[in-house]
Amino acid sequence: MKVGILGTGEVGRTLGAGFANLGHEVRIGSREPGSDKVQAWVKQTGARASSGTFAETAAFAEVAVLATLWSGTESALQLAGAKNLAGKVVIDATNPLVFQQGKPPALALGHDDSGGEQVQRWLPDARVVKAFNIVGHAHMVKPQFPGGPPDMFIAGNDRAAKETVARILADFGWPEPIDLGGIEGARLLEPMCILWVLYGIGVGSWNHAFKMLRR
Amino acid sequence: MKVGILGTGEVGRTLGAGFANLGHEVRIGSREPGSDKVQAWVKQTGARASSGTFAETAAFAEVAVLATLWSGTESALQLAGAKNLAGKVVIDATNPLVFQQGKPPALALGHDDSGGEQVQRWLPDARVVKAFNIVGHAHMVKPQFPGGPPDMFIAGNDRAAKETVARILADFGWPEPIDLGGIEGARLLEPMCILWVLYGIGVGSWNHAFKMLRR
Repeated sequence: MKVGILGTGEVGRTLGAGFANLGHEVRIGSREPGSDKVQAWVKQTGARASSGTFAETAAFAEVAVLATLWSGTESALQLAGAKNLAGKVVIDATNPLVFQQGKPPALALGHDDSGGEQVQRWLPDARVVKAFNIVGHAHMVKPQFPGGPPDMFIAGNDRAAKETVARILADFGWPEPIDLGGIEGARLLEPMCILWVLYGIGVGSWNHAFKMLRR
Repeated sequence: MKVGILGTGEVGRTLGAGFANLGHEVRIGSREPGSDKVQAWVKQTGARASSGTFAETAAFAEVAVLATLWSGTESALQLAGAKNLAGKVVIDATNPLVFQQGKPPALALGHDDSGGEQVQRWLPDARVVKAFNIVGHAHMVKPQFPGGPPDMFIAGNDRAAKETVARILADFGWPEPIDLGGIEGARLLEPMCILWVLYGIGVGSWNHAFKMLRR
C-alpha cells in the first residue's frame, strides 16, 4: 500500500515508520521535505521511505495519515489539496489542542463539533477516520502493556474506510478497534486525549493506554 | 456516615444499597417518599435505610449523592435546598443526557461547560465531586471484570472532598481513583458516558468498564 503521512512530528514519524516496517511504501509530507529532520527520517526508515511536499504526498497516497499540529492542519490540507485526497482513506490522528502557558492543553472545539468533523469538512470528498488520537506516539505501534492489548476507538462516515483502518490497526497491534459510528464520534475521542494527558501529568509518566474491560 | 441519596432510579437505589451494605445510614430522597417503589427499596435495604423528601434527605446527609435524571436535576436541587447541602460533599453521578428518539443519547452541554460544573453552580457552597458517571449502575458496586478492577476518574474543586470520595470509591471496589483536577474535568468524563453507551450498543451488552493500562 502507498501511505502518505502529512506531518513530520513524532506522531507522523512514528506511524510512518510503523507502516514502512509492515512493508508499505511511505512518503512523508511537509513544508520542508528537504530539511535535515525529514531526510534523517527517510534515511533511517529505509528503502520504502521517501519525502515530498504535502501535495506530492497526498497525490502519492492510497491511504493518508493526518498527523499535524492542530494550528497547522488547515494550511497543511490546503497545501495538500483536497482533490489529491478525494475518495481516499484519511486517518485523522490529530487532536484540536490549544496550548496554554502553565496549564494542560484544552480542546479548540467540542460538544457539538470536533476536530474530526472539521477535517472531514476541509476534505469533503475524503473518507476520514479518526484513529490513534487517544494514546501517545510511543505506544501507537505494537503497544505493550500488562493486561493488554489496550483498545483503540475509531469513528468515520464510510464503512469500507473504517474496515481498512481496522485492518491497519490490527497490523499495528490494536486488534478489534471499537467503532463509534460517524465522524461525530470524534467529539468523544478528543476529550479522551485530554484525559490521557491529565492522567500522565498526575502520575508523572506517559506509559498508559485505555482498555475497555468486558465480561 | 449519614448518606443522602437524591434520586430513586437504578443509580440511586444501587449506590444507596452499596452504602447501607457498608454500614452507613442511608436516606433516599424523592418527590414521592411514600411511593411503593421507595418503600420497597427501604424495606429491602434494611434497618439502616429510610426515605424522605429531597429537603429532608439533603438535611440528613453528611455526604450526598446526586443520582437524578438530568431533566429533573435542577428542580430536585431546588427542592433539596442549596442551604441544606452547603459545605457538604455532593457526589455527582449524573450525566447531562438528552434522549432522542431512535438515536443514542447526547450531552446537553459540553466542551466549555459540563453537568458537573452546572451542579456546582446550582450548589455554590457544596463540595461537588464528579464520580460514578462512566459506568452502568450494575457495575458501580464491587465491579468484577477479568483484568480488573476497572478505573474510576473523579473531578472536583475541593481536595478534602475528593479524598472522602476516594475512600468511598475504594470501599465500593474502585481503588485509587484518578483525580482529573477541578470540576471542569467533568467535561472529559461526561463524553466517556456516551462512549460507554455506544460501546454497549455496539457489542449488545452492558458489562464493560474503563481501565487505564499502565506500565
